[in-house]
Formats: sequence, structure tokens, C-alpha cells
Amino acid sequence: MLIEFNRFAPEKDIDLVLGRLNDEGVLAFRTRSNMNPVIVSTLKVDGLKKLNIEGVASVQRVVEVSTPFKLASRAFKKTDTVVKVDNLEIGGDKIHVMAGPCAVESREQLLKTAHTVKACGATFLRGGAFKPRTSPYSFQGLNEDGLKFLAEARTLTGLKIVTEVMDTRSVQLVAKYADVLQIGARNMQNFDLLKEVGRVSKPVLLKRGANATIEEFLAAAEYVLAGGNEDVILCERGVRGVNEFTRYTLDIAAVPVLKKLTHLPVVVDPSHATGHWNYVEPMAMASLAAGADGLIIEVHPEPEKALCDGAQSLTPKNFTVLMLRLAGLQNSVCRDLAVPDMHLQQLDIS
Amino acid sequence: MLIEFNRFAPEKDIDLVLGRLNDEGVLAFRTRSNMNPVIVSTLKVDGLKKLNIEGVASVQRVVEVSTPFKLASRAFKKTDTVVKVDNLEIGGDKIHVMAGPCAVESREQLLKTAHTVKACGATFLRGGAFKPRTSPYSFQGLNEDGLKFLAEARTLTGLKIVTEVMDTRSVQLVAKYADVLQIGARNMQNFDLLKEVGRVSKPVLLKRGANATIEEFLAAAEYVLAGGNEDVILCERGVRGVNEFTRYTLDIAAVPVLKKLTHLPVVVDPSHATGHWNYVEPMAMASLAAGADGLIIEVHPEPEKALCDGAQSLTPKNFTVLMLRLAGLQNSVCRDLAVPDMHLQQLDIS
Amino acid sequence: MLIEFNRFAPEKDIDLVLGRLNDEGVLAFRTRSNMNPVIVSTLKVDGLKKLNIEGVASVQRVVEVSTPFKLASRAFKKTDTVVKVDNLEIGGDKIHVMAGPCAVESREQLLKTAHTVKACGATFLRGGAFKPRTSPYSFQGLNEDGLKFLAEARTLTGLKIVTEVMDTRSVQLVAKYADVLQIGARNMQNFDLLKEVGRVSKPVLLKRGANATIEEFLAAAEYVLAGGNEDVILCERGVRGVNEFTRYTLDIAAVPVLKKLTHLPVVVDPSHATGHWNYVEPMAMASLAAGADGLIIEVHPEPEKALCDGAQSLTPKNFTVLMLRLAGLQNSVCRDLAVPDMHLQQLDIS
Amino acid sequence: MLIEFNRFAPEKDIDLVLGRLNDEGVLAFRTRSNMNPVIVSTLKVDGLKKLNIEGVASVQRVVEVSTPFKLASRAFKKTDTVVKVDNLEIGGDKIHVMAGPCAVESREQLLKTAHTVKACGATFLRGGAFKPRTSPYSFQGLNEDGLKFLAEARTLTGLKIVTEVMDTRSVQLVAKYADVLQIGARNMQNFDLLKEVGRVSKPVLLKRGANATIEEFLAAAEYVLAGGNEDVILCERGVRGVNEFTRYTLDIAAVPVLKKLTHLPVVVDPSHATGHWNYVEPMAMASLAAGADGLIIEVHPEPEKALCDGAQSLTPKNFTVLMLRLAGLQNSVCRDLAVPDMHLQQLDIS
Repeated sequence: MLIEFNRFAPEKDIDLVLGRLNDEGVLAFRTRSNMNPVIVSTLKVDGLKKLNIEGVASVQRVVEVSTPFKLASRAFKKTDTVVKVDNLEIGGDKIHVMAGPCAVESREQLLKTAHTVKACGATFLRGGAFKPRTSPYSFQGLNEDGLKFLAEARTLTGLKIVTEVMDTRSVQLVAKYADVLQIGARNMQNFDLLKEVGRVSKPVLLKRGANATIEEFLAAAEYVLAGGNEDVILCERGVRGVNEFTRYTLDIAAVPVLKKLTHLPVVVDPSHATGHWNYVEPMAMASLAAGADGLIIEVHPEPEKALCDGAQSLTPKNFTVLMLRLAGLQNSVCRDLAVPDMHLQQLDIS
Repeated sequence: MLIEFNRFAPEKDIDLVLGRLNDEGVLAFRTRSNMNPVIVSTLKVDGLKKLNIEGVASVQRVVEVSTPFKLASRAFKKTDTVVKVDNLEIGGDKIHVMAGPCAVESREQLLKTAHTVKACGATFLRGGAFKPRTSPYSFQGLNEDGLKFLAEARTLTGLKIVTEVMDTRSVQLVAKYADVLQIGARNMQNFDLLKEVGRVSKPVLLKRGANATIEEFLAAAEYVLAGGNEDVILCERGVRGVNEFTRYTLDIAAVPVLKKLTHLPVVVDPSHATGHWNYVEPMAMASLAAGADGLIIEVHPEPEKALCDGAQSLTPKNFTVLMLRLAGLQNSVCRDLAVPDMHLQQLDIS
Repeated sequence: MLIEFNRFAPEKDIDLVLGRLNDEGVLAFRTRSNMNPVIVSTLKVDGLKKLNIEGVASVQRVVEVSTPFKLASRAFKKTDTVVKVDNLEIGGDKIHVMAGPCAVESREQLLKTAHTVKACGATFLRGGAFKPRTSPYSFQGLNEDGLKFLAEARTLTGLKIVTEVMDTRSVQLVAKYADVLQIGARNMQNFDLLKEVGRVSKPVLLKRGANATIEEFLAAAEYVLAGGNEDVILCERGVRGVNEFTRYTLDIAAVPVLKKLTHLPVVVDPSHATGHWNYVEPMAMASLAAGADGLIIEVHPEPEKALCDGAQSLTPKNFTVLMLRLAGLQNSVCRDLAVPDMHLQQLDIS
Repeated sequence: MLIEFNRFAPEKDIDLVLGRLNDEGVLAFRTRSNMNPVIVSTLKVDGLKKLNIEGVASVQRVVEVSTPFKLASRAFKKTDTVVKVDNLEIGGDKIHVMAGPCAVESREQLLKTAHTVKACGATFLRGGAFKPRTSPYSFQGLNEDGLKFLAEARTLTGLKIVTEVMDTRSVQLVAKYADVLQIGARNMQNFDLLKEVGRVSKPVLLKRGANATIEEFLAAAEYVLAGGNEDVILCERGVRGVNEFTRYTLDIAAVPVLKKLTHLPVVVDPSHATGHWNYVEPMAMASLAAGADGLIIEVHPEPEKALCDGAQSLTPKNFTVLMLRLAGLQNSVCRDLAVPDMHLQQLDIS
């Protein structure tokens, strides 16, 4: 059960209800939604009578939510959440394409890629400064230097920055430079990290674990929301199915399933899902056709020299072709690409 | 290694080569492709010299194919296979939509559905007369009666018939009525059945097993091709991944992966994959956006009364909406829907 | 609901009840269990009143079984089923080891293996005459010749024969030679084949599909039971999990899970599950420790020359070592190996 | 390639080799093994000549290891690693049973369980003070209070303490109280956490992720080893397979597979794997029969009141029965249970 108060609710009202829930011996957890205080409790609505809540004037509504994710559910919030990143809106009228290298490798590599993806219509620059690598002997990222290069790229291009944070101890640091904090698939159930990004005032892009059910995915998002951070962007990036020619099985059906269960925006990462650049375009097309709010795509100026995941990175030319094909989908999906200050038809793919 | 002869190759040439392969103690299997005799052998090309094949004039070419699927591979045949069903072409310029009920339940139900899907632009009628059911106590199909109703529906509507065959003993019977023989996902590795449909002159729609790798899928198709039947349509219908809100995980990436590995046409079944009618439309859109040659969709006049899989069946109205949305994709995918004798814009969805 | 009659129930009683169920419009399916006629119906027990069944004297009991498998359930039959193969009992006091080559390759290979496994204490000889192979170009088995060699091996050694049947058209032929008909994992949901072996009077060893849930597995067994054949032996042989160093993930927990849900005996195939001979012994040990009624093990006189699955076959020497280790488990699992006419301690592993 | 120096190698030798590797432009990473300095490099042995390493006297050996895990591999270290926890040895002659509640819920609950499991022969007490929970609204653990209760239980019983650490910021705190630091399945690829526990001088029990391949599992262990902590205990606890009646599929074959690939000890957690107390005993038996070095088992004085995972917890009585059954396996597996100061036959299960 969720008990939502109006935003001017006096603390004593909230304490009163918390106290009565404690008296009943049921769990009660205080958070907020859209500025309103909210109490999440394991009490069912039919136990409501005992709470004598009618007398508490600042209680706005009481909602029963049967799923383990509460604040994240459509049952609690009917309208789509639009995550604002400055003047950009994820989950709104426009489709956003986030693009960039897997890892920030050098200032030159990053700036070159940033200019390229900007010219093609991307609105966000992606790139890892902290890299989760299967082997301790693989390139682990440039750390704060990488973050600085990302910030410089933002200054030069106007692109917003989305980059991964892997450790609770780095959240403040990454938040200083990034516009959106990415939680990687391997950390989807790193609950301390989820709690920590729930406390900052930067949007979070949460990737689905390769093994995670939809319910686990939304329960992970709930950790961030329950911490008070309502700006969560969900990202489908493939699950382990029957894989041989692709790295993971991109679960595109997760897009409409999530759209039904939650109000949070949903983007898709076809690069990590497939692991091969030549399958990125068809899967990007498919994702938008299925209703995704955006894409996150790996682009590298020289994929064959990439320190990480070169096989799945698009060349600038291939990325240009992709953007043109995506533009061709706009009418079919009744939604435009967000390509500020430019016209896609000017792109040169010769 | 595949050794292809020209179509006028004398039997003695073929026997000669077979004999030499036998002398070398390597496996050799005779089949044909596009009317040409072909010998498939485990001999590698570098063992070719011993065969002294230059002297055999009717040998047209020798191709090394390293994958377990040989005739099905792009390495053997570069151009797309177009499967002809009378005047219709699967894998050609047009996208085909096959639609109909999961099971043929009665003459009335079938004919009603047939007229509906025809009116909306479908070119094939699907519907099972023999039903593979998990439980022996579930409805098992109308058998030959069902086939007769399907044939009658063809006569009345001009729709081509695609229906499942489950047992080697029924292949001739089903082939008498159907235009395309469907092999269900559970029978994808029923090798005797694959051999049997390899001997008939009707196209085969082969569904991917829920657990099958792409390589196993193509090796299953190879059984049909090796039997002499070159008209195989592949059908992706979902694999077991991390499923809770959908029945299977639709592996849409299989479409471009298959397109790269094989010349055979690829269609997608979003109904069985998702198990819920409300996810059929986004997954149908996504499949075409990813490059599928067609779709196979469940439609039932009264899904709530269906004897089988009602939850995943579209109502006639929902099917109409779907067809209109698919029509909107035509420009984006540079390919039209095959909707003979009608104009989609005339469809009424009020 | 299952309605069980006593074995002398007059036909008219059964017809009467079937008729009333039909009148109610519910599905009713006639079969038998332990010689008693049984009607399986979708009617729930609370609908029983309408049937007016008290007046039918030959009705012995009515059992509600909520699982999709009915006759196979513990709810219907509390006591363990013991499958008799002549004087041998699967699921009884003794643990049985079935052993032999993957495929019957030649008379010599088979007889040699048969003598070896007999000498080590196996009670059944396994070996495929019809082989389900992923590729049409792989060795497909010796067919009836293979069956004849198996029968000869039985005559010479006294071992019982378990061998696979793949096609409905071969059931009679295989039943003529074999003591136990094996249904392979790929055919677990070949429903026509299940129905066909349900009609013969030979025990059936049913392998779990690599993708099958326990419920699907038992529903497949139900097809055989519903056909009137009560002698079904279940065989766990691995599912697709997270596999790299083993072919499948052997789901040993399936043994106690099945033992709880069903009365049918359960054996395990560690050879196909692991795909590597050196993991066969620990997995065989683990299976018995978990409560399995028997094992089915691949043994080949010269694994490196095997036409099929050599990597997972034990040499005669390794099989001897395995049998000694299994013998060492007898006290721990409170059950002896069935090793007629011999003493395991005489085995020579020098 | 790994270059191992003797333990008295002067720093200049190591720097010299590192310098030459850097000159070649290949990655080089310094760590140690058994007190000896080791350089891990991506250089292959055939590139060794260029390094001119013969002149470096303190180089003890050069080993090519082709797997991504290097220090963890059998190729690098042939003999079994025995992890010492005071006077106890994991991976040595004796089998250890770690037991206790899922979560530390209260001082009383913990001490009661500690005395029980001690009396039955367990050598380690398990119990979470920090709990990774799918939902933010579930009980999250008693944190440092829980750690204090664990330490008190150790003082009272002599049991060693194994407990989970979830966050890099808590590593020092948990290390202050625990004897063994557990990394949970969800954190198996929390690389910063792995690095952090690689720096402490307490053994680490690393659980396999539910989705992790064996290679990923060992690469995760490599992070700890590369950090300089050689005392890693691997723990198999189930992967996602085809699950319905068990929570995960316990991959018991991982035990012999790991034993072949690595020198690290391997224990099994049948409680989390199955999720049901009645399958814990057969799976515990199977794990030891397959060669596991130990078990980690959930025991709760009153499972029905547990705040976490009650369904999979054994009662004290069931745990007693389990220990007796395990004792019965000792001869079969040629290894005794470590049950200091007691005789299992004195256990009372009346």
C-alpha cells in the first residue's frame, strides 16, 4: 500500500501515520514522488481501517500496488515519466539517440567521436571512464581523466553526457561531470550503488542485467525511486537466451512489456546486445518500431583499434547510414528523432 | 565440400565421383539444388586433388562450406531463395502476412476468420488441423475434417493454406490439402519428419525450436533441402530466455543473423512468441523493421472462446489495426505488403 | 478429476459416466491404471454432484488432481511404480546401470561392448540403431541391422536391451527387438510418437527435453500413460543452462523433485548431459547420491574411433572404475546395485 | 604469459622486465603468488625472445596460460590451494559444513542457531548482516549490530564466521568481525568490490552469479588473486536453467569442471540453489559425491518465522539428519567431515 500526502503535509501528519503503522507491526518506508511525501507499507488496503487515516487531512490518496515495484508501477502513476536533462526530454515527444565509444580512450578519440555523432543528430554522448571488464588484465578506463574529456566534449558540442558509475565511492565524482549516471548491467543488483544514486539529483540510466527478470529490473529501479530520485531511464540490452552469433538475445518485447507495467522511459542498447556492428542497424530499427523512447549506440572512429568492444562499434559512416534509416521510421512510429539544429537530409554518406 | 554438376550431367559422372569418394573412405551424400545434382561430402577441398575431378566435364563447381548446414548456406548459394506458392512469392519483393486461428475448431469459425483476414490483406490462412498439445487431455485438432475446412476456405477466399504436419504418416494427407506444410517448433528436430517433408513437392515452413541454436535450426532446414525440397521458409517464434510476462523471448536478431547465413526466406511469429495479443503488434512492427519477409499471426473471431491460445489471438478489429500499422512501415523498410486486389486504406477500424 | 472404476466394472457403467460428462459439456478421456478403467475429465470435484455418481457401484474412487499430469502424479498414485523388465525391476530395491555405445556401429563393436559392460555389472545394454543427428550428413544408424545385433547381444549376455525409436512407423519394428523403447530428448514432445508407444506393451524410457520444464516432462509421460502403457521410466539428461565446458547442465535436483511429484522411476544420463567422459563419474555418483533409480552410461571399446559422441564415452577400464565407485556408494544410499551373478570386488582395474 | 620471480627478487629486476614489456607496447600487470612477485602480460611466449629475459636471474619460470584466468588456473598452479582459516583448512583433507541463518535477525536467533549447528558438527557459522534484497522494502539486515552478534557467536562456540560484504565502503568493517568475507552472487562482477577484497588479508568466499559462465566466474576470482589475496573459496549456488520447482538449477557438474580448471577449493550452497528445504539434503549429498570441498547450508531455529528465505532453511532437527547422512558418505568419497571435538554418532534425531 502506498499512502501519498500532499506536498504541504506537516511532518506531524506523516509521523502520525508512520507511528500507527509501526504500532501495527508492519513495515513502513518513507519516500516521495513528484515532491509529495509517500509512505510505502506492506499493510494491505483492507487493513486500512485500523489506521484511522480519514482524520489525517494531508493524506491525498491511498493506492494498493500488488507488484514488488511500487513507485515504478503504472498502478501508482498513470502518466509517462518524462526525464528532463536540461532542455532535453527522454520519454517525451522525441526519440533520442545516445552515441559514442564504449570506453573513453583518449581526448582525441573522444572529441573526434563527439563531433561525429553530434553532426549525425545524436543528442547524448556515451563513453565509459570507469569500465567493468570481465578480466582484471583488460583496460579498466581512464577514470577521472576520462570524465574530464567527457565534460570537455559537452562544452564543445553541447551533447549531454551519459557515463557509467561502478562504485558507491565514485558517485559524487561521476555526478560532478555527467548529465546522466549509467548503472551497468552487471551492477543492476548492486543495491548499495542503487541506493547511492537514489540520493543524487542526476538522472539515472539503469541497464537490465543479462539474467534479470522484468520484475527484478523494476525492483532495481524502485531502489532509486525509493531513495528520492525519480528520474530513472530503463535500458534493455539483451538477456542470455540461446546465443551463438549474437552476444545476448535482445529482448525487444521488453519494450512494450515495460511500457505497460511502468511509467518510466525505456531505451535500447543494440550494440551490447548483439555484439556485432552489422546487426546494430536492424535491431535499432526494430527497437524504435516496438516503441522505444531512444537508443544508445556505440560509435568509434576506428573500431578495429578500439580498446574495448570494437566489433560492435559503428564507424562514423555506418552511424550516418543508421541515422538516416531511423529518420525514415519517424512517420511509421508517429514520433520524430530529436535532432536539434540540423537536418538529417544534409547527411553525407557518399 | 559440395560438388555441383550441371543439370544434364550423365548418371555415370555422378557415380564416378561418388565412387571415388567412397574409395577415399569419406562420407558422400547425393542431393540436388536448383535442378542440379549435388554431392555433399566431408572431404575438404584440399583433398580434392585425389579425386581427379578435372576430367569430369559435368562438374560445374566445387564449394567448400565449413558450416554444418551446406545447401542452406549463403556460401553455397549467394542469391535469396524466393519460395513460390502459386503466384505468391515468399522472400521476394513483397511482405506476406499469414493469419488465422491457432486451431481449426469448426467450419464456421474457420470460414469467418478466413474472410476477415482476407479482407484485411492477408495472403495466407493459417490454422492447425493436427495440434501438438502439452497435455493429452487438451483439444487435439479436427484432423482431416480440419484440412477439408481449410481447403474450402481456400476455394472461397483464394488464400493459400499453411498448416502443421506432426507425424510422418500424415505427410501425404496434409500435402493433399495444404499449400505450405508447417513443421512446429517441438518437431524441429523430428528428423524422420524432416526427411519425409524433404520428399514432397510442397513448400515447408519450419519453425525454430524454443531451445534451438541458429546452427541447429539451419541444420534442420538442411534435412529438408538434402531430401530434395528446396522450398523452405524459416520461422522465428521465440526462444526460452528470461520469461515471465511473455511466453518466450522473441529473438528478432535471428532475422538479420539468418539473412546473413542463409539464402532462405525468414518470417516471424509474434503470437506464439509473446503469448499475449497486446504485444503482437509491437513485435510484428519490430520484425518487419528488422528485415523479416513476412509474419504469421493468430486471429480469432472470438478469442475468449478459442479452444487453444486465445490469449494471444487478435480480434478481427485488432488485426485490422495491425495491418494498417504495418502498411505505415512500407516506406521505411522499402518493401510493400502483398495485399492483392485491395487497398489497405479502405479498411474500417471504427 | 479422475474417476477410477474397479477392474470388473461393466462397460455400461463406464459409458454411463462418460455420457453424463458429455452431457455436462466437459472433456472426458478414457484410459486405465493398474488394470482399472479410469476416466480423466476436466470437471472439478465440486461439479461432481451433478454426475450422480454414487449410484454407479463400480466407481472405486474419485481423485482431484490439479496438475496437468494426472495418472503420472503422486496425488493419483501414492506408491512407487516399479517397472518390470522380465526379472529386473526399475524403481525397486536395486539400482540399475544401463550401458553401451551411443550408436550400434557394427556387430563386433556391439558384442564386444556388451560383454564388457555385462562383466562390470550392467544389467541393460544401450545403443542406438536409429540415431537422431543434428546434421543429415552424420551417421544415421544401422536401422534394423542394428536392432538385430542388439538382440543377438541379449541372447549372448542376458542383458536387456534399451534402444531409441524415432518414428511412429518404426515403433512395431523396434518393439519386436527391444526390451525398453527409448524416446529421445528431441522427441519428448513428438506427441504422435508418445501416443504410439502408449499403445505397445513394452516399457518406455522417456528422456527429458533439453528445454523442458518438469511439468512438460510429466505431461509427456502422461501421453504414454493415457494410452494405456503404465511402464514409463523417466530420464534426466541435462537442460540448457549456462554451458561452456559441459554440453548441458545436468539438473540433478530434478531427481528429488520428480520423486516428490510422480510415482514413476527416475534414471539419469550423465554422458549426454556432460558430453565429456571425465565428468561422467562424478555426475553418476552425484545422481545416485540424490536418489536416482539408475544410470544410463555410454561405453565404447575405442571411444576415439566412435562414429558418434566418442568424447563422452567411457573406455571399458573407466567403466570398471566407475562401477567400483558406485558400489562404494551402496551403503550411503541404502540401496544395492543390481549386479546379478557376479561380485564387483572381482573387477580388475589394473 | 606469467613471469614468476623468486621471492627475493630485487625490485630492479621486476622493473626491468616491466619496462621491457612496456617498450614492446604490451599490457603488463604486477601481482604475486605464494609470496613470489608475478607479472601477468598479454605477451605470448613466442614473443619472449625480444624480452631478453634469460639475463634476469631472479626470474623463476615463465608460464603460458591461454585462459582469461591466469593465477587461478591449474596451468599456473598444479597443486590444490588449501585456504586456512586459523586451524581449519578448506580444500584440504576434511569436508567443512558452514551453516546458519540466511540473515542475522537478532542476538537470540543467532546464538541459538550457532549452538545448534556447532552441536551438529558445523565448523563455520554463516549469516548475513548486510542483505542484498530484490526489493528496497524487504529487510535489509542489522548491519554492524549483526556483525557484533556474529563475533559474539564465535567467541561462545568457536565457530568461524562467514558473512557477506556488499559495498566497497564496508569491506574494512566486515573484515574486522568476519573470518571469511562472502561476495554474493549478485556482486560476482562488482569489480570494485572484488578489487577491494583482493587487498585485505581475509579469505574470500566468492559465489557464482546465477548467469555466470565458468570462465566469468574464474575471471572474477582472478580479480581477487590479482589484488594479492590468494585465499579464494569458490561457491556454486545454481544458475538459471529451466526452473519451476527449484529457484535455480544447481550446476553440480561445475564442481568437477572447476576442479579441473583451477586449484581453488569449491563449496556448494544447495539452500539458495533449490529454494526449498526438502531438496537441500539430496543436493548436499550429490555435491559431496561429486567432489565438493564443503557445503554452506541455511539453518533457522524457526524457519516459518524467518525474515528471509525461510522456505529453504532447515530446522535444527533436519540439519541433524542431514549431517548424519553426510557422515554416511565419508567412506564413499574417501574424505571425512571436519567435526572437531565431537562424534556424529552422538547426535540425537529422536
